[in-house]
Amino acid sequence: MTSELDTQLLRASHPLDLAAIDTSSTPGFDGGKKAGRAALESGEARLAELQEKLFAESTADGTRSVLLVLQAMDTAGKGGVVSHVVGAVDPQGVALHAFKSPTDEEKAHDFLWRIRKQLPAAGRLGVFDRSHYEDVLIHRVRGFSTPEVIEQRYGTIRDFEQELVDAGTTVIKVMLHIGADEQKQRLTDRLADPAKHWKFNPGDLDERAFWPQYMEAYQIALDRTDADSAPWYVIPADHKWFARLAVQTLLIEALERLDLDWPAADYDVEAEKARLAAS
Amino acid sequence: MTSELDTQLLRASHPLDLAAIDTSSTPGFDGGKKAGRAALESGEARLAELQEKLFAESTADGTRSVLLVLQAMDTAGKGGVVSHVVGAVDPQGVALHAFKSPTDEEKAHDFLWRIRKQLPAAGRLGVFDRSHYEDVLIHRVRGFSTPEVIEQRYGTIRDFEQELVDAGTTVIKVMLHIGADEQKQRLTDRLADPAKHWKFNPGDLDERAFWPQYMEAYQIALDRTDADSAPWYVIPADHKWFARLAVQTLLIEALERLDLDWPAADYDVEAEKARLAAS
Repeated sequence: MTSELDTQLLRASHPLDLAAIDTSSTPGFDGGKKAGRAALESGEARLAELQEKLFAESTADGTRSVLLVLQAMDTAGKGGVVSHVVGAVDPQGVALHAFKSPTDEEKAHDFLWRIRKQLPAAGRLGVFDRSHYEDVLIHRVRGFSTPEVIEQRYGTIRDFEQELVDAGTTVIKVMLHIGADEQKQRLTDRLADPAKHWKFNPGDLDERAFWPQYMEAYQIALDRTDADSAPWYVIPADHKWFARLAVQTLLIEALERLDLDWPAADYDVEAEKARLAAS
Repeated sequence: MTSELDTQLLRASHPLDLAAIDTSSTPGFDGGKKAGRAALESGEARLAELQEKLFAESTADGTRSVLLVLQAMDTAGKGGVVSHVVGAVDPQGVALHAFKSPTDEEKAHDFLWRIRKQLPAAGRLGVFDRSHYEDVLIHRVRGFSTPEVIEQRYGTIRDFEQELVDAGTTVIKVMLHIGADEQKQRLTDRLADPAKHWKFNPGDLDERAFWPQYMEAYQIALDRTDADSAPWYVIPADHKWFARLAVQTLLIEALERLDLDWPAADYDVEAEKARLAAS
């Protein structure tokens, strides 16, 4: 059994109104923190087993993969999702990449160049910690690209993701939606604890000053790139336990929809048994 | 507290005599399976915390990393070590690579070319599932390279690993030493269970036929490339719980020797607190 969290309530609506979403809510889940943590723990083995089946399929010429795209404001919990949700999966089946500010070489290429290089191979659960969406988010807010270029990118992204889907990748896009007050609290906690000082970057406060502009950029980007084949989910993220459980549930559901099974042997099992017995 | 396993007993001796090592033994550990599993579980948080400190150091210009090299005959448990030992570490701090048969492009380069590309960045725990040692193991057994080339490679490998050590990488090399009978049992189990058929490859039996030659190749390779700065450990691997605990202990000890601490802030904490409060 997976948790009772109803992920359909997390699907981005059209038109999207981020301000109308209570970042401290836990839509689709009846329990509190204790029940949520228990549900997360009980889903770990299920997620790991499903991923192993996907991996097994890839050893028998399967081409399917899953890609989780994580976008969020700083401190919203991307790292915690990677550690506590993805961390339950065998590392051999995970292809994680954290996209930082592009290098000079990356900037000299189309914005999808560095993204394509990190796409998950067949059988893997790919995880993007930030992604090509930075090129329509921070680029819009900070003016790194012109409005015309950004406008064009929405279409480019839609086509790109459809290409992935057509090639066998299940694409799941998640915005961890944290409130500005909760971010302030988390940053305050980091500054109060010397063991967490390394997690703080003065640049985080620079970006925080653009909060309304970021919300607008997210809203537009999600509206323009949401698709049934590559859906966006907006997950209220003030409660870490809820955000983690929601992402885990999305992954489990996506893998269950693949109707995975252990692949049949592509060799003569009885013949190999005899050969082994004689060895 | 880490476990009470004495890893010095696992260090490769000179001259190495693999046949003299009981693959079902548990050197340096007094308890049995139950105690071993408990010790493994209790070490998980410690390993994860140490690795996080290594990662934190890298965000403050630290250059240190750890590289675990795993070599073994098929079924010896490399995958289980990755899943159950490395799996306890935050995926963001792990750089895992499984080396398969080289591609045509890789073959057109020096044997270390593909290895260097997978070296862990600062702050990461790198894990090689198979490695450059294949170029002196299967290459020797199957004659893929001449004796002269293989002879030269031992020196090349020693120099390469010393270079890594000099650059700040702690190198830990592990041979999971399984017995031929135990391998037979594990392969039998795989063939008996349709859910495990995908893990079996007829090629495994082809290699199994060369068991004595592989043991000789391992013995020579370990003898020629063991160094205090890049040590080899031979871990009896008939008991999966023991092999996992031994690797975990090696990693914890290596990280503890780095004397890690949370890095100090490279910004004015009080100024940032004030800036945050005003935001």
